Parts: sequence; C-alpha cells; structure tokens
Amino acid sequence: MTDSRAEQSADTPWRRKLHTIVFEADTPAGRWFDAVLLALIVVSLVVVMLETVPSMPEPWRRGLRAAEWALTGVFSLEYLLRLVIVRRPLVYAGSFFGLVDLLAILPTWVSLIFPGAQALLAVRVLRLLRIFRVFKLARYLSEARVIGDALRASSRKIAVFLFTVSTVVVVVGALMYLIEGPANGFTSIPVSMYWAVVTLTTVGYGDISPATGLGQAVASLVMILGYGIIAVPTGIVTAELANAGRKLETQHINTQMCAHCGADDHRSDSKFCRHCGAALH
Amino acid sequence: MTDSRAEQSADTPWRRKLHTIVFEADTPAGRWFDAVLLALIVVSLVVVMLETVPSMPEPWRRGLRAAEWALTGVFSLEYLLRLVIVRRPLVYAGSFFGLVDLLAILPTWVSLIFPGAQALLAVRVLRLLRIFRVFKLARYLSEARVIGDALRASSRKIAVFLFTVSTVVVVVGALMYLIEGPANGFTSIPVSMYWAVVTLTTVGYGDISPATGLGQAVASLVMILGYGIIAVPTGIVTAELANAGRKLETQHINTQMCAHCGADDHRSDSKFCRHCGAALH
Amino acid sequence: MTDSRAEQSADTPWRRKLHTIVFEADTPAGRWFDAVLLALIVVSLVVVMLETVPSMPEPWRRGLRAAEWALTGVFSLEYLLRLVIVRRPLVYAGSFFGLVDLLAILPTWVSLIFPGAQALLAVRVLRLLRIFRVFKLARYLSEARVIGDALRASSRKIAVFLFTVSTVVVVVGALMYLIEGPANGFTSIPVSMYWAVVTLTTVGYGDISPATGLGQAVASLVMILGYGIIAVPTGIVTAELANAGRKLETQHINTQMCAHCGADDHRSDSKFCRHCGAALH
Amino acid sequence: MTDSRAEQSADTPWRRKLHTIVFEADTPAGRWFDAVLLALIVVSLVVVMLETVPSMPEPWRRGLRAAEWALTGVFSLEYLLRLVIVRRPLVYAGSFFGLVDLLAILPTWVSLIFPGAQALLAVRVLRLLRIFRVFKLARYLSEARVIGDALRASSRKIAVFLFTVSTVVVVVGALMYLIEGPANGFTSIPVSMYWAVVTLTTVGYGDISPATGLGQAVASLVMILGYGIIAVPTGIVTAELANAGRKLETQHINTQMCAHCGADDHRSDSKFCRHCGAALH
Repeated sequence: MTDSRAEQSADTPWRRKLHTIVFEADTPAGRWFDAVLLALIVVSLVVVMLETVPSMPEPWRRGLRAAEWALTGVFSLEYLLRLVIVRRPLVYAGSFFGLVDLLAILPTWVSLIFPGAQALLAVRVLRLLRIFRVFKLARYLSEARVIGDALRASSRKIAVFLFTVSTVVVVVGALMYLIEGPANGFTSIPVSMYWAVVTLTTVGYGDISPATGLGQAVASLVMILGYGIIAVPTGIVTAELANAGRKLETQHINTQMCAHCGADDHRSDSKFCRHCGAALH
Repeated sequence: MTDSRAEQSADTPWRRKLHTIVFEADTPAGRWFDAVLLALIVVSLVVVMLETVPSMPEPWRRGLRAAEWALTGVFSLEYLLRLVIVRRPLVYAGSFFGLVDLLAILPTWVSLIFPGAQALLAVRVLRLLRIFRVFKLARYLSEARVIGDALRASSRKIAVFLFTVSTVVVVVGALMYLIEGPANGFTSIPVSMYWAVVTLTTVGYGDISPATGLGQAVASLVMILGYGIIAVPTGIVTAELANAGRKLETQHINTQMCAHCGADDHRSDSKFCRHCGAALH
Repeated sequence: MTDSRAEQSADTPWRRKLHTIVFEADTPAGRWFDAVLLALIVVSLVVVMLETVPSMPEPWRRGLRAAEWALTGVFSLEYLLRLVIVRRPLVYAGSFFGLVDLLAILPTWVSLIFPGAQALLAVRVLRLLRIFRVFKLARYLSEARVIGDALRASSRKIAVFLFTVSTVVVVVGALMYLIEGPANGFTSIPVSMYWAVVTLTTVGYGDISPATGLGQAVASLVMILGYGIIAVPTGIVTAELANAGRKLETQHINTQMCAHCGADDHRSDSKFCRHCGAALH
Repeated sequence: MTDSRAEQSADTPWRRKLHTIVFEADTPAGRWFDAVLLALIVVSLVVVMLETVPSMPEPWRRGLRAAEWALTGVFSLEYLLRLVIVRRPLVYAGSFFGLVDLLAILPTWVSLIFPGAQALLAVRVLRLLRIFRVFKLARYLSEARVIGDALRASSRKIAVFLFTVSTVVVVVGALMYLIEGPANGFTSIPVSMYWAVVTLTTVGYGDISPATGLGQAVASLVMILGYGIIAVPTGIVTAELANAGRKLETQHINTQMCAHCGADDHRSDSKFCRHCGAALH
C-alpha cells in the first residue's frame, strides 16, 4: 500500500530507480537486493543466537560481536536509504515493515547503554516476512489467508473457548492451592494457575505436581477435562477449514448455467445439461 | 427467567427502578452498574490471588486484606440489595446467579472462623459470566450454544469414550503396579492409575515414570494407544461441529417458501412443494 | 448369542426361571440381580485398589482382605450357578463374558499360592461391561458401534500410520543413542526408542532428555514431526466419523421413492414428489 | 521401475530365473526368498538393539556379535547377488532400495575401523519396506497414497504453518532468554528455542522450566498459543482427508455409463449424458 503510493509519486529518476531496487522484487536488481538482504538477516540471526552460547571461546565471541556491529551498520544504512528514497518517510516509518526495520537495528545501539539488550535482536526474524515478496509466493499468501480466514471466522467460538479455559484455570488453580498447599510446590494461587495451564494444555513439565491423594485425583479429572477441551479448538478450526474447502470446490462447479432450462450445479467438465439435454457452452 | 418474572411483578416504582439498574443492562444506569460491578470482581480476583503470594511484603499484604474486606462488604451489600429488590427473594437465592453471588462473599466471612478459606473466593470468577449480559454478547452466547449443542449431541459417544478410558486406566494401572512396584514410584494401584491418566492424556509430568525394561515397553504401548485415543473425542466433536455448520448452511440455502401453503425448508433443487404439491418458482 | 441359544433349550422350569434372573435383565428380578452384581463389582474394585495403599492402617487392611475373600466367594458361587443353569456350560465358559467371570475370581485363589496376584483382580473392571445390559443401553451400544466402525473402516490407514511411527521410532532411537550416548541417559537403543515414543507422543516425562546441542536440535525436529504426525490419526478418525454421520443422515432421507416418476432422495417429511408433484405415501 | 526394465533385458535363462526369485514375489520361490529375508532383517534389528543393552552378560554379547557378523555376511552376499543378476547394476545401486541395501551392510564393515558405528545398522528398518511387496499389500499402499496425497495437497498450508511456528520459536526463545536468563536453565538463545519447541509441541520434559513469575506468565501464554496452534495442522490434514473421502465416495456413486458414447462419472441425479446429450437410464 505505502510502497505503491510512494512509488507513483517518486519524482526524480535516481530515486525511482533506487525505489524499484530497494522496495520491489520485480526487476533482477531488486530481486538480488532482497535475496542478499534475506541472507544477511539469516546470518545476523545466527550471530545473535551464537553470541549467547556460554561455551563459545573468547576469540570467536569477539568475531561474532564484530559481525553483529557490521550487520547492524549495514541494516542502519539500509533503513536510512529507505527513509531517503521514500517520498513520505513518516508513512513508511509507521508501517509494519518500517517498524520491524527499526526494531531490527535499535537493540544493538541500545546495548551501548544497557548491555544485554542484544537478545531483542531476535525480532529480526520478522524481517524474514519479506521472503514472501522475493519469491513471489502469492500462492503461499493465499494459503495463509485461508488459514487466517478460518481462524477469523471461528474467532468468536475461540473467544468463548478461551473464556471457559480462563475460568477453569482460576477455579482449579485456587482449588489445588487449597488441597496441595505451599508444601507441595503450589506456593500461591498464581503459581497454582500456572500449574493448571501446564496441565490443561498437556504440556506437563513436572516442576510442580500433586503429591497428595486428593490432589492427584483432582489433577486426573482436570487432565481428562483438558483432554476433552483440546478437542474443541481442533474441531472449530477443522470444521471451518473443511467449510472453506467445500466453498472453494462449490465455486468451481457452480459457474455454468443451462441457457435452455436454467438448470445449474453442473460438473465443470459437462458438455450437456443434465436436466434437458441441451448443449452447454 | 427469574429476573423477568420478578420484573413484571415489581409493584412499587422505586423497586422497579432499582430493578432495572441492578438486574438489567438495557438502560445507561444499568449498564454502568454492571460495568462497575465487573471491574470490582476482576479487582477482587487479583486481590485474592496476590494475597497468597509468599514474597509479598507485609505492608502490601495488609493493604490487600483491607481491600478484600472492603470488596466483600460491597458485594454483601449488593447481595442484600438484590434480595430486597426482587419480589421473590427465595427464587433468586436458589437460582444459578443467586448461588454464585452468595458463594462469592461467604468464604471471607467463613475465614473469620476458619483461616485460609479465602482461596475459595476464586469462585468469584463465575460472577464474570455477567459479562455476557453487559456487553449484550448475544452472538457470543449463540456461539457458545453451537459448541454446547455439538458437545450435547455427542454426549453418548463421549460417555462411551470415557467408559473405555476408565477401563483402560484401571487395567493399565493394576498392570504397571505389578510390573514396576512400589520401588519405582508405583506405590499403590490408585497412584498407578494416576500415572496411567497422566500418560494417556500425554501430560507426562515425570514425577512417576517406569524404570524397568518391561515397564517402559508397556508404557510405550499405552502412549501409542493414548495417541490413538486422543483422536476419538477430537473426531467426535469435529464431526458434530462440521455437521452443525452444514445444517446452518443448508438452512441458509433453503430460502424458498411455497406461495400456496407457505411451507419452507425445501431442497434447493425441488420443483414442487413437498407439502401441497404446488409448483415452486 | 450363547445366552439366547442356551435360553431356548433350557428345559426345566426352575432352570428357565433362574436363567431369566441370572442371565437376563428384562424382568424386575433379573434387573435387581444385575444391579446388585454391578454394585458388588464396583465395591470389590475399590477394595482391591485400597488394599495396595501402603499408608492403610493394619486393622483396615485386615477388613479389606476379609471383604475381598467374601466378594470372591460370592463371585465364585455366581460363576458356579451360571455353569449349572446354562445348558451348554462349555460354550458359556468359552464365551467372552464367561472368561471374564472366571478371570475375576481366579487371582484371589491363585494368591493363596503366589502372594501379590491380587492386583490382577483389576480385570474385574471388564465385568462392568454388563452395565450395558442392565440399563438397556442399546443406544450407547449403537454409539460404540459407530466409533468402532469408524476405527475399523480406517484400520488400514491406521496400520500404515503405525508402521511409519515404528520406523521413525527405530531410526530416531538409534540416532539419538549415537548422538547422546549412555552418559546422558540414552543407555541403549531400546531405552532410546522408549525416549522416542515418549517424545513423539508428546508425553515428555523428562526422565530422559537430550543434553547436547546436537541432541536438542534433533529432538526439536522430532517433536515438530510428532506434532505433524498427531494430525494424521486425528484426521483419519474424524473424516471417518464425519462420513458415518453423513451416511446416517442420508439413510434417513433416502427411504422414500415416488411411485409415479421414481424420483428418490426426498426429505423424510416431504408429502409430494419434488420432481413430478405426485403424492408420496 | 528399475526392476521391470532390468527383467525384460535379462538375457540368460539362469539370470532370468534368479531375477524372479530375488527381485520379485510372484512365484512361490520368490515369496519364500523375501519372507526369509524379512525374518532375517527383523532378527538383525533385534540383535543390533540388544547389543547396546549394558546389562547384557558377556557370553550373550559375544553370541550377538557373532550373529551380527553372520547376518551382515548374508546381506552382503545378497547385495552382490543382486548386483550380478541385474543387467544394469549401477541403476539398481543408485535406486532407493539399492542404497538402502548398501546402507544396511556398510556400518558393520565400517565398525572394523571406527568402533560404535553398528548403531547405524538401525537403518536396516527401511529394508522392511519390502514387506509391502511380499504380502502384495497394494491396498495398504493405496491407503498410504491417500494419506500422502492429503499431506501433499496441504503442503503449502503446512509450509505456512511451519514458517509461523519457526518465527514464534525464535521470538519466544529470545524473550525467555532475557526474562529467565542462564540462572534458571535458559543458558543461551538456542537452548531457549529448544525450550520453546518443547513447550509449543506440548511435550514438556521439564528439564528446563521457567522459575520467575514473569517467565511463568509468558510460558502460560505460549502454552495456550501452542494449544491453538496444534489445531491448525490437525484441521488442515482432517479437511484434506475428509475431502479425499468425499471425492472417492462421489466416484463410487457415479456408476452410470452412457450407452451411446460410453462416458461415465455422471452425477447421480443426471437424466442426460453430459458428453453426448443422450438420455441416461
């Protein structure tokens, strides 16, 4: 949206040229630019991750830190370039990709003042969403839209479901706090609620687990409940996705209509009307 | 039900006026009353939770206790007010919301005699169900009804499923008690059954886990069984929800109504009314 | 099957009378007999479970043992009675319920020689299947048949799925044994395969977990794989159940056929043919 | 493919005869050859597994090692035989089964130089895929194809899903590393990402688990998110499988064939052929 509007109003030739390279992926140069950028993002993600590994030897660590500063420099220049090229820099800066581009460089600069902020650089992973533009993955985007539509269509059912889960978590959390008590690891109601979430979602770390007979009995009931509850969101999303698939299918079939008798609902490879026998176009 | 009947028979003007404020959410005053009430309920829930956190400093704790008493006072007054306003107090007191309103204040008073009962105040979360009335979330309620209908329609299948799971839990529990024995944490058949539930539901705390080779082999079989079992309730609920969606869809398509006898709910490819035989358009 | 055949050939009146009481649940006496039996089975199950609890005080334990012997005596008499009443005792003794009835009393007698065999009494839970006959839960049985049919219809898909899972378990188990080794708990390939099952089914006890970086990376891939794999049996059973539901629905619709034009597929409440307008019966 | 081509060009009679025995399972001799081979593969897998069990007594271990060498000798001879019989040995050696056959013997020979490589023999499990040929399990293969088709049809949706999961894992991993830190087990971002995968997939080992209040709150959100995320692949595969089932069903119903032009695959309520317009019976 922002891109195309900015593109149309780009007035000087060099700005227009740079714009097609930096913001688009339709020309060879633009595709190269984005491919190199994606590679650099992946490299920078790996660098950020490796930097936190404690067993890393000191010389390697120094090299990683240098690489991080170099990459942050490149990304900062790229961000400034984008601001210069675009005609309405504020619109770009406020857009989703603009904010992500800024958040991808900010933590390194912030770490000059507050050490340790580098871990926030993991937000760079969001920059990888550009991948969809580079490989022209329009089909993948349409798939994402089908999933997104299914989730949106069932958002109210999911809200009811989340409300139910929250209620169960609060009540079960309080109950187990009373039954097990601080001696068995249920040190407070919030901790007890954390245990309830861990149990209901069948994650089951085991850092907190019931030790009394009554507590184990209640926990068993909660688990079987959680077992049933997991069926609900799965059912909702599945029904919605199956529905979307059926609609798509129906649309493929329902386009022909007999000119003679008006019957529709023909198969897409039918040549004659299945009601009056007249030829279909 | 109780509310509307009580409303109709409310005879004095001040009682009628208070009734619309306290029991309904259709007037601005009534909506304000319920919004404030919901906020107080959420605050009181947070207060109850924080009070149990052991690392809470003493001055804060004293403040929280004061807040709890204040909120309990407000809720007690509200409960009495509801009893006074409603013409048939016993019908209200025996209704679902009446009982929840009482249970939401009782634990604090009980804690004067038995300390520690405050944790039961978490039952206040049920009062949040009023949220559906305040925001007129009729649509959300209809979504909840769809889920509820799907669960009810498959209740017999779920009963068969629960019976099967119970049988497996008892048999596997006894078997593992024999194989592993008290030395490996399977101290009794009930504890062994608790382990079976933890395993079948894929929660897997790890507080009890098989240590012998035979026990691990049986446990592996139980897990793969549980893997298959989880498919059954999901399948039941999904099929039911998909069914509900299809029925809804079918109803939307069948908008034809016979001009002669007024019958509707025809198949979309019907040519004649299925009740009186008149031609459909 | 066995019961009804035996019933027809029961020749003496007292045998016929006892047969209707002991084997059937259609007369008040028969229903009483089965209800008392079910209650005794539940009591005996609870007794067997409680007997294994180590914290049980000695006097209670002695009472439980007495109760177990009393109940075993009752069940033994009942088993002998069934053998006497039925005309073909061997057919009954070889039937499913006959074997269950025998297995329900055998462990107690065996425990005279081999102590500890009592835990096997949990097999008594299978006797509870009689519950379906007592409450005439024919409808529940038909629900169980729907689930059973769905599982049987997808048995080949499930076999393919289990074969795939087994292959993954063996390969992943051997791989993790090589990567992690005995030092990190993967003491042998069978133990490693047990870990693979625990992980793939998302149970995740945590009694064995990867400690090396490479092991954690491989484990992460296995988990995401397991995540995808869990979708397959759920999808299979759901599709089958949805199918069964659709067929059932279709059968309710498809019974009428127009005597005039032969059109079928009418709604069950249609009175006139939707193709030619002739009256339906 | 490779087999049949090679078979046609096998010129000498003994080579042709051996080919039908070794490569095919249509003659009694060929079926016997494959059945014995499968049994040997299963035995060799068990041998490889048992050899790694540390509690195995030394004499047994020596026997297992001898058995492994004997089996490897047999498999090596079989591999050479296949190379000799087939007319284009390189095509066979490069085919899927050819590579598997080689990988099934290589580790034992390699273990002469690098001890410990025997565990790689678990790759022999892939040789069991021959089972499909022996038992002529064409129907099972078609079931596998239905599952495979469903997965392939939804591969783009699954790619979008995996991309989403990866992004969540990186962001959540970095966030939890910041919140919990090395003191609570989150020693680096890669380890934190491993924790995120363990949590999102609801495996939940508990080897790493959040200890701070904020960490537990974020973990709770991640779990409920994972709970919702698990619904997506299940929904995708289920919808696809249900779709496949519906298509199959439709094909089964459309058994009509036009007497005039021979076209089939008509809708069940069609009256005229959709290809030539002739009346259908």
